[in-house]
Amino acid sequence: MARYTVLKTEGRARRAEFETVHGTIQTPVFMNVGTAAAIKGAVSTEDLENIGCQVQLSNTYHLHVRPGDELIKSLGGVRSFMSWKGPVLTDSGGFQVFSLASIRKIKEEGVTFNSHVDGRRIFMGPVESMRIQSNLGSTIAMAFDECPSSRAGREYVEASVARTTRWLYRCRDELSRLNLLEDTVNREQLLFGINQGAIFDDIRIDHAKRISELDLPGYAIGGLAVGETHEEMYHVIEQVTEYLPKDRPTYLMGVGTPLNILEAVERGIDFFDCVYPSRNGRHGHVYTKKGKLNLFNKQFEADSSPIEEGCSCPACRRYSRAYIRHLLKAKEMLGMRLCVLHNLWFYNHLMGDIRKALDENCFASFKKEMTESMSEEAGGRG
Amino acid sequence: MARYTVLKTEGRARRAEFETVHGTIQTPVFMNVGTAAAIKGAVSTEDLENIGCQVQLSNTYHLHVRPGDELIKSLGGVRSFMSWKGPVLTDSGGFQVFSLASIRKIKEEGVTFNSHVDGRRIFMGPVESMRIQSNLGSTIAMAFDECPSSRAGREYVEASVARTTRWLYRCRDELSRLNLLEDTVNREQLLFGINQGAIFDDIRIDHAKRISELDLPGYAIGGLAVGETHEEMYHVIEQVTEYLPKDRPTYLMGVGTPLNILEAVERGIDFFDCVYPSRNGRHGHVYTKKGKLNLFNKQFEADSSPIEEGCSCPACRRYSRAYIRHLLKAKEMLGMRLCVLHNLWFYNHLMGDIRKALDENCFASFKKEMTESMSEEAGGRG
Repeated sequence: MARYTVLKTEGRARRAEFETVHGTIQTPVFMNVGTAAAIKGAVSTEDLENIGCQVQLSNTYHLHVRPGDELIKSLGGVRSFMSWKGPVLTDSGGFQVFSLASIRKIKEEGVTFNSHVDGRRIFMGPVESMRIQSNLGSTIAMAFDECPSSRAGREYVEASVARTTRWLYRCRDELSRLNLLEDTVNREQLLFGINQGAIFDDIRIDHAKRISELDLPGYAIGGLAVGETHEEMYHVIEQVTEYLPKDRPTYLMGVGTPLNILEAVERGIDFFDCVYPSRNGRHGHVYTKKGKLNLFNKQFEADSSPIEEGCSCPACRRYSRAYIRHLLKAKEMLGMRLCVLHNLWFYNHLMGDIRKALDENCFASFKKEMTESMSEEAGGRG
Repeated sequence: MARYTVLKTEGRARRAEFETVHGTIQTPVFMNVGTAAAIKGAVSTEDLENIGCQVQLSNTYHLHVRPGDELIKSLGGVRSFMSWKGPVLTDSGGFQVFSLASIRKIKEEGVTFNSHVDGRRIFMGPVESMRIQSNLGSTIAMAFDECPSSRAGREYVEASVARTTRWLYRCRDELSRLNLLEDTVNREQLLFGINQGAIFDDIRIDHAKRISELDLPGYAIGGLAVGETHEEMYHVIEQVTEYLPKDRPTYLMGVGTPLNILEAVERGIDFFDCVYPSRNGRHGHVYTKKGKLNLFNKQFEADSSPIEEGCSCPACRRYSRAYIRHLLKAKEMLGMRLCVLHNLWFYNHLMGDIRKALDENCFASFKKEMTESMSEEAGGRG
């Protein structure tokens, strides 16, 4: 079992360590999203090591569809496959099944759907998700859940959450069984449960209580940043974290902007992931402590300064805004890569600054300062 | 003036050094093609340093059209722009003007054509090309020439070559003038002349003699690998190198496969450039000492070995054929990048092996060994 040790607190914000079989994670942490076992934007695992990434996140659905989890198992699991020595978290596939694939049918055992790659009919439920994630051999496996729309009606959400609870028991039982097998890639694979309930406080809280009963090594809050307002999101986090075990890490799935992260840390969140830094980077949108810049803008045409003065990322160490803008305009892949590297560095180092502020008991003033200097950005789970 | 020092010879093959204001080049050398001031495939200048690149080549036409040579001059020249400390060679734009752009009119002073980016009407001739290359501030500027088709008739080629000779005088005079100006980026910029003449021996030889009279710091053989056979190409090289100055480096433009390079070194060539390694890499075709592999092939699906056993390139050091194949199939940019890095490493290190063989007086046996182990590949200037 992984050990979660709280080192410092400031209000509800927690500075902690999470020890896993693949290394100790310093939290709060941002997990870098490598959907298909690679960060989009030609970022290699060597790059990940150089930009301060602690945890890499890969997508179960994508890897199941291509190249296949059996293949990855035969090559030693996803960490060996992509040559990443640190911890890996895999999502359950649920989010992608419900958003990307064309769904045929939901039943108690899972979902029948068509692959977005080749249209092939696939069945995935809690048992299948655990088997796939076990084949991938990630450090942390996520429970298979349904993520209802933030606009779904109460009745739908209630039924969906009840099924997600039943699915969690199936997940736990199946992963326990798999972890005992001789040829399992990572026999110490951890399961995190996921809280759902859209924006209904009572459903969220009731669900948080129910999943806490399983005493899992960690819990996530899912179904946020899918269309609700930031205020609704912060409210749900505040409500739910009260009812999740205090001695376990909490992961806010798919969130978010730097400001979202600061707000969520304040409300007790430890783990984050989001496609923003890589997706924005591929579009030439780069983060600075004074807000985002769009490097396509004409104003950067002859700008010999780095993306952010004082930044030591692989892009800012050598290249000017003018050069990167030229690469983006000329559709040179290097332009995207440099922006993605900068953005991931920015996110990973923001988390480092947050941890340092918590270590030094000055998170509140750090948050205030950052919030004032950065302009607000759009939300979304991605 | 740059100094070319022959260190060893074996038959007509030469192992030499070429000292420039931006560093000493060990020859024979392969120049890595960064068309728009970046190697395609998300390869950074930092990567170039790590894969053994000595000289980076950029394209005058592309940089003139976008982002503009005046802009690059204002940012300190192309070396400063792309953060590359070593020598840079710029082509003259002639090849692209005659192949990429839609030509409106050729006259004595140059060519009117439409930009391939925005259709804008542009005039470029020897004087314009020198001004642009001076703005780019490359180490070596290439003369503005016309590269007639290998299938062009004798009459056309004769007239074209005579004009290319006249253009060379204009280039020399203009670059001499520019190198005296106070605000010139690189006042020690070198001019290489270019031999043309399609596959007509007498025109080629006569042209080689004429351009040799200018006593330039280096000479190139252009207009090869544009459709003629390998035997015709080797024959032209043999004929022409006899009549170019022996105390100057010779550059075979746009060539070629590893076997082409071995044959050309044997015939006295010092400088090479070719888009093959980067273009092939982007298509998943990778070089090994036993020939090329297509990593899209199913046979590599579960292959845990590196592209080439024993290779120390950034791709082979960490990643398997199976992983890279997955990335290529999933259209992850990282797949292209790893293949391009491997291929450029392969080319740069092939040149290192050639130099070592010449140093040790065993080029003939090295060439025989490599030729036997590698299978023949297609030609083309690209």
